[in-house]
Amino acid sequence: MPPSRAMVFTSFMQTALSEARAAADRGEVPVGAVVVSPQGKVVAQAGNRTREGNDPTAHAEILAIRAACTHLGAERLTGCALYVTLEPCPMCAGAIAAARIGRLYYGAADPKSGGVAQGARVFAHPQCHHIPEVFDGIAERESAALLRDFFAQRRKT
Amino acid sequence: MPPSRAMVFTSFMQTALSEARAAADRGEVPVGAVVVSPQGKVVAQAGNRTREGNDPTAHAEILAIRAACTHLGAERLTGCALYVTLEPCPMCAGAIAAARIGRLYYGAADPKSGGVAQGARVFAHPQCHHIPEVFDGIAERESAALLRDFFAQRRKT
Repeated sequence: MPPSRAMVFTSFMQTALSEARAAADRGEVPVGAVVVSPQGKVVAQAGNRTREGNDPTAHAEILAIRAACTHLGAERLTGCALYVTLEPCPMCAGAIAAARIGRLYYGAADPKSGGVAQGARVFAHPQCHHIPEVFDGIAERESAALLRDFFAQRRKT
Repeated sequence: MPPSRAMVFTSFMQTALSEARAAADRGEVPVGAVVVSPQGKVVAQAGNRTREGNDPTAHAEILAIRAACTHLGAERLTGCALYVTLEPCPMCAGAIAAARIGRLYYGAADPKSGGVAQGARVFAHPQCHHIPEVFDGIAERESAALLRDFFAQRRKT
C-alpha cells in the first residue's frame, strides 16, 4: 500500500522535529525546518543556529532555504514545500515569499513572535508578491512540547 | 569645525549608495546597506547579492547585519545603526529587530515591497520584540533614481 498523503506530511515534519531536537542539544531554540522538492525529496534540512554562528538571521527556515537554493543552483524554490516546527516569524515569512516556496506546513502557532497568522501577517498584504499555501497545526503538540521543555529547562539553570 | 550630525548621516548614506551602485554593476537590484557602531565607525557594508549567490535572503541589510555580527562576535548589534538606501522589506525588518539595531536610517520609501512604513509594518505589532528608531527620506532622491534607472535599463535590454 503506498503511503498516504498524511503519512508523508508526518514523515517530513518528523525530520523537521529531529532538526529541532538537535538544535536544543546545541543550546539553540528548538525549531527545525525541511525543504522538500516538487518530486517529494528532501532538498535541505536545518535547525536554528543563531548562537553558534553569532547570526541573528540563522533561523531554521532561512538556513534550510539558503541550503536548498545552493543545492538546486536557483534563487527560487518554485513548487517546493517548507516544513517547519513553529509558525515562521516575519523575517522567515518574508524569506519564504522571496524564495517562492509553494506550500508552507508548520507545527505550533507562535502568538509571541509569529508573522504568518498573527502580528505582521506577512502574506496578507499587497507588498507580498508571492503567497504560499499554508497548512498549520502539523505535529503541533510535539513541536510545542519541545519548545516548552527547552525554556522550562533554561529557567532552571 | 567638527562635522554636523547631518553631514555624518549623509556620509554613511553615501557609503550605502556606493554599495547600491556596485550592486547595479553586478546586475543586482541596486540597494546598499551600512552598519555603524555606537562609536560611529562603519562595521560592515554590503549590496544586494541575491543573484550572484542564488540566495533569496541575500538582501543588502541581511548581508550587512550578518557581516557586522561576525565582525563583532555578537548575535546582537545593540546600539548600532543601519543605513540602507531603500525601505526594508518584511524579511529585512525582521532581521533588524532580531539583531537589536538601535537606529534605522533609510532612503527611498518602497510602496511596492516595503515592510516598515507600509504593508506588514513589522515594527508595529506586539510580536516584534525590538523596535528601532526609524528615520526615513535620507538621500531619498539619489536612492530612488538609482532604482529607477536600473529598472528602466533592464526594460530596454
